Amino acid sequence: MDHLFFVVLNIIGTFMFAVSGVSVAISKDYDLFGIAVLGFATAIGGGTLRDMMLGVGPVSWMSDYATIITVLVAIIVSSLFLGYIHKLGWWNIVFDGAGLGVFTLVGMQKGIDHGLSPLVCVLLGTITGAGGGVIRDVLSGERPMLFQKELYASVSIAGGAFYFLLRALASDRLTWHWQAVACIVFIVALRVIAVRFNWSLPRIRAHRSG
Amino acid sequence: MDHLFFVVLNIIGTFMFAVSGVSVAISKDYDLFGIAVLGFATAIGGGTLRDMMLGVGPVSWMSDYATIITVLVAIIVSSLFLGYIHKLGWWNIVFDGAGLGVFTLVGMQKGIDHGLSPLVCVLLGTITGAGGGVIRDVLSGERPMLFQKELYASVSIAGGAFYFLLRALASDRLTWHWQAVACIVFIVALRVIAVRFNWSLPRIRAHRSG
Amino acid sequence: MDHLFFVVLNIIGTFMFAVSGVSVAISKDYDLFGIAVLGFATAIGGGTLRDMMLGVGPVSWMSDYATIITVLVAIIVSSLFLGYIHKLGWWNIVFDGAGLGVFTLVGMQKGIDHGLSPLVCVLLGTITGAGGGVIRDVLSGERPMLFQKELYASVSIAGGAFYFLLRALASDRLTWHWQAVACIVFIVALRVIAVRFNWSLPRIRAHRSG
Repeated sequence: MDHLFFVVLNIIGTFMFAVSGVSVAISKDYDLFGIAVLGFATAIGGGTLRDMMLGVGPVSWMSDYATIITVLVAIIVSSLFLGYIHKLGWWNIVFDGAGLGVFTLVGMQKGIDHGLSPLVCVLLGTITGAGGGVIRDVLSGERPMLFQKELYASVSIAGGAFYFLLRALASDRLTWHWQAVACIVFIVALRVIAVRFNWSLPRIRAHRSG
Repeated sequence: MDHLFFVVLNIIGTFMFAVSGVSVAISKDYDLFGIAVLGFATAIGGGTLRDMMLGVGPVSWMSDYATIITVLVAIIVSSLFLGYIHKLGWWNIVFDGAGLGVFTLVGMQKGIDHGLSPLVCVLLGTITGAGGGVIRDVLSGERPMLFQKELYASVSIAGGAFYFLLRALASDRLTWHWQAVACIVFIVALRVIAVRFNWSLPRIRAHRSG
Repeated sequence: MDHLFFVVLNIIGTFMFAVSGVSVAISKDYDLFGIAVLGFATAIGGGTLRDMMLGVGPVSWMSDYATIITVLVAIIVSSLFLGYIHKLGWWNIVFDGAGLGVFTLVGMQKGIDHGLSPLVCVLLGTITGAGGGVIRDVLSGERPMLFQKELYASVSIAGGAFYFLLRALASDRLTWHWQAVACIVFIVALRVIAVRFNWSLPRIRAHRSG
C-alpha cells in the first residue's frame, strides 16, 4: 500500500468534512468553540467509529498530526471565508462528494487490511464516509441525513460495490491507484447526479395489510 | 461453551431486533435505505457497543456471516410482510422479548468469558439487550425507550440477576443450556407480564424539599 | 504514578457527574430506572468514550469496583437528598467544576501514558470531562451543553493547556501531585468565574458575504 497516497486522500476528506461541520454550526449560530467541535466531530467521527469497531486504538487521528492540523486549518479557513464557500454553490456538492468518496475508500481499504469480507468492507466504507455526518446531525439535534430524501450513504455503498467489481475484473489492467481514483470519481459523479436529478429510493407504505 | 447453541441464539435475537428497527423505519416513512440502516443498527447496535467497551475488535458481526445474512433476510422479510407482522399483535411483544432475553444472555456470557464481576456482566447483558433499541431511537430522533413508561431494560437486569442466582444455586442440577433457556424464558415472561399489567417503576418528584 | 491519588480523584469526579445525571433525570420525571441509567451514563460516559478511542478494553469501570460502587451510592444519595442538593445553589457549580477538572486531568494523564502528543492529550481530557454530559444530553433529548452559551468544555481545554504549561515550566519545583491539584483548581475557578460573569465566546454571523 502506498502510504503517501493515503495520507493525501485522508487530508482531502478531512478538510471537506470539517468545512461541512463548520458550515452547519455557523448556520445554527454556535459560538467559536461549538464551531470547532462540530467541525472536528464531522471530520473525525466516521474514522473514529470505524477504528473503534475494528478494535484499532488509539484511533487514527490520535497518532497522526496531519489530521488534526488539517481540521484546525479547515476550521479557521472556513470560519473566515464561509461567505465565499456558500457562493461556490454546486461545487460544495462536489467537494462533499469527494470527502464521501475518499473516506469510503479509506474505510474499505482498512477492512481489506484486516482480512474482512467484501460486504463488511463496503459497510465499513459507508460507516467511515457517512458516520461523521450522522454524528454531526445527532450532536446538533437534527434528524440524521441518513434518513433524508437525497441519496447519500447509498451512493457510498454503490461506490463500494463498484470498487470490488473493479478489483475483481480489472486488477491486471489498472494499478491500485487508478482503481481508487475510479472509485472516488464514481462516488462524486453519482452523488452529483443524484442531487441534480433529485433521485430518491422508494418507500414502503405503513399500515398496509400485507 | 457450546458454540452452535450461541450461534442459534444470536440469529434469533438478531432477527427479532432487525424486524423491530424495520417496523419503526416504515412507520416513519423512511426510504428503503433508511429502513435497511435502522434494521441493521437495531440488530447489531447493542452487540457492537458491548464489543467496543470490551475492547474486542473487529466487533462480532464483522467476522460472522450469520449475523449479516440474518439481518438482510429479516429486513427483506419484514419489509414484505409488515402487514402480517403487525397483525401478530401480542406475539410481537413475545418476539421482541425473546430478542431481549437472548441478547442479555449473550452479553452476560461474554462478560463471564472476560472474567468480569457478576454486576458488570449483568450491565453488559443489559447494554447488549437494550443498546440496539437506544441507538435506533437516537438515530430516528425519538426519546430513548429507556426512559419510557414500560419496563424494558429493567426486565433485562432482573433476568441477569436471576441467571446468576441460578448459576449459584442450581449449577449441579441444571446444565448450562437449561440455565440459559430458563433465563431467556424468565425475561420473556417478565416482559409480557410487565406490558400486560402496565407495570412501571416509581418516580421521584422534582423540586421536593428533601 | 500514584495509583491511590488517581483512585480518589476518579471517585470524586464520578460522584459529581452521577449526581448531575440524577438531577436531570428527576427534573424530567423519569422513573427510578431512568434515573439510575442517566446517573450511570453521565458518570462513566466520558471515560468509556476515552477508553474506546484509546483501544483500551475492557473499559475502566468494568474492572474497577470503586467506580460502580460510587455511582450506586451517588444515585441513592442524590435521589434521597435532591432537595438539599438544589439548595446548595452555587456549590453545585463548584462540585460539577470539580468533576470536570478531575476527569480532564485523568483523561490527559491516560493520553500521556499512551505517549500521545500534548494536543491530543488535551482533547482526550476534554472528551473525558465533557463526554459524559454530552451523552446525558443526547440520551435525554436535549441540545448538547457543548453548544450552549456558557463556557464548559472550553474551560477544560484551557485547563489542559495550563497543565502542560505547568509541566514544562515548573516540573522541577512542583511535584506531580501539586501540578494536578493546580490544574483542577484552575478549571474549577475558571468555570465558576465564567458562570458568574456570564462569559461567552464570540459567534460568526451566518450568511455574511465573506
